[in-house]
Amino acid sequence: MNETLQTLLNHRSIRAFTDEKVTDEQIFAIIEAAQMASTSSYMQAYTIMGVTDEDKKAQLARITGQDYVQHNAHLFIFCADLYRHQQKATKEQKDNMLANLENTEHLLVSSIDAALAAQNAAIAAESMGLGMCFIGSIRNNIQQVDSLLSLPSHVIPLFGMVIGYPEKQPEQKPRLSREGIYFENEYKQDQTTELEAFDDTIREYYKHRSQNNRKDSWTEQMLRRFQKPMRMDVSEFVQSKGFNKR
Amino acid sequence: MNETLQTLLNHRSIRAFTDEKVTDEQIFAIIEAAQMASTSSYMQAYTIMGVTDEDKKAQLARITGQDYVQHNAHLFIFCADLYRHQQKATKEQKDNMLANLENTEHLLVSSIDAALAAQNAAIAAESMGLGMCFIGSIRNNIQQVDSLLSLPSHVIPLFGMVIGYPEKQPEQKPRLSREGIYFENEYKQDQTTELEAFDDTIREYYKHRSQNNRKDSWTEQMLRRFQKPMRMDVSEFVQSKGFNKR
Repeated sequence: MNETLQTLLNHRSIRAFTDEKVTDEQIFAIIEAAQMASTSSYMQAYTIMGVTDEDKKAQLARITGQDYVQHNAHLFIFCADLYRHQQKATKEQKDNMLANLENTEHLLVSSIDAALAAQNAAIAAESMGLGMCFIGSIRNNIQQVDSLLSLPSHVIPLFGMVIGYPEKQPEQKPRLSREGIYFENEYKQDQTTELEAFDDTIREYYKHRSQNNRKDSWTEQMLRRFQKPMRMDVSEFVQSKGFNKR
Repeated sequence: MNETLQTLLNHRSIRAFTDEKVTDEQIFAIIEAAQMASTSSYMQAYTIMGVTDEDKKAQLARITGQDYVQHNAHLFIFCADLYRHQQKATKEQKDNMLANLENTEHLLVSSIDAALAAQNAAIAAESMGLGMCFIGSIRNNIQQVDSLLSLPSHVIPLFGMVIGYPEKQPEQKPRLSREGIYFENEYKQDQTTELEAFDDTIREYYKHRSQNNRKDSWTEQMLRRFQKPMRMDVSEFVQSKGFNKR
């Protein structure tokens, strides 16, 4: 197996870091790798924010409820960005752009662009012996994160990423079997067998892992998670920034 | 520079493949790598479809207008998926899930999950000497692609990916400078300098590249691209599948 596959297959989210710093050269290599990901129709429809200001990091740690958002070697926030495409537009051109800027297609384009770049950043970091974790909980208060970073219209924060040297390597979290996530030619509607097998795996995992043992299965965990409406304000926020309005 | 960074930085989209086949082991390694990407709150909110049926591939080539969608060693379609999470829900639980299933937050969660997995798949393929290209143009007729793959409600096709052995290595396409895409602590609203520098680079690139030479800049290309409303039906389609309704 080649070194890159080994890196990909060895992923685990790291939520505790040593005090060791990362160099600018490492940060720049991570950004360069992110930028080389594919981008829809060459749009490069994302921006990467770096947060180094300690006060802003503290605020983001409060919003996310995660102290490793403050304590890490570097913090990125990945944003969907359709702002720079308008920078040189005339008033008339801007008006004509609006249908695209505001449709769901371009919310998808820019979010997917940002995610492809981010995953390259993750792999680049891990290839250098760093650990990383995505931070979806910036959407706990997406409006506040937006203000904190002074994002203009047509730019929205999607998720964060912390990196640093891992304090330890936690166990790897199991995934659905290949048969549970990959279907050929036609979607498999009855996934009972795959889900039951996975739930058995997960019950064992939660029972035996070194920390936070509990009795739980994936299906039960998901059912609980979806019961309570979450981040309902994201819809209105996204529209207020000029995305996903038609 | 490590082997993985080299792979990441060496990316170019491949749109023409030799007749050499890929093995099942290669496909499975690509899927396994995809699955090891981070996933929001363990949701694994995506499905990977493999299209091997020649008739379906031909239909997809027609929809996308790209013959390499038919002529490749393997074709994947990455889908956002919030279907499997409901598989074991009671009627009451399903009703309670609906607010989450239908909000913009979970359109983002599932699209980002799918994109993270897809980028791992891309890197895995490239690490094995394969070439790949994302296929956003399945959204030219997203409804038809949806029917072709028999996707149930709460599953939508987002983009395809073709892989195979590259017929040749095209030139690499330049990216915005780091200063054009990465900002610290505060968004940089005036990007004129970065965009003008990038436009100079792109003019040279289009003038001198070995095929399809033209006189063009990135800014002009983007302005043209955004003038005409594109894929306006994606909004309604996404809602018809139970996503992004509130």
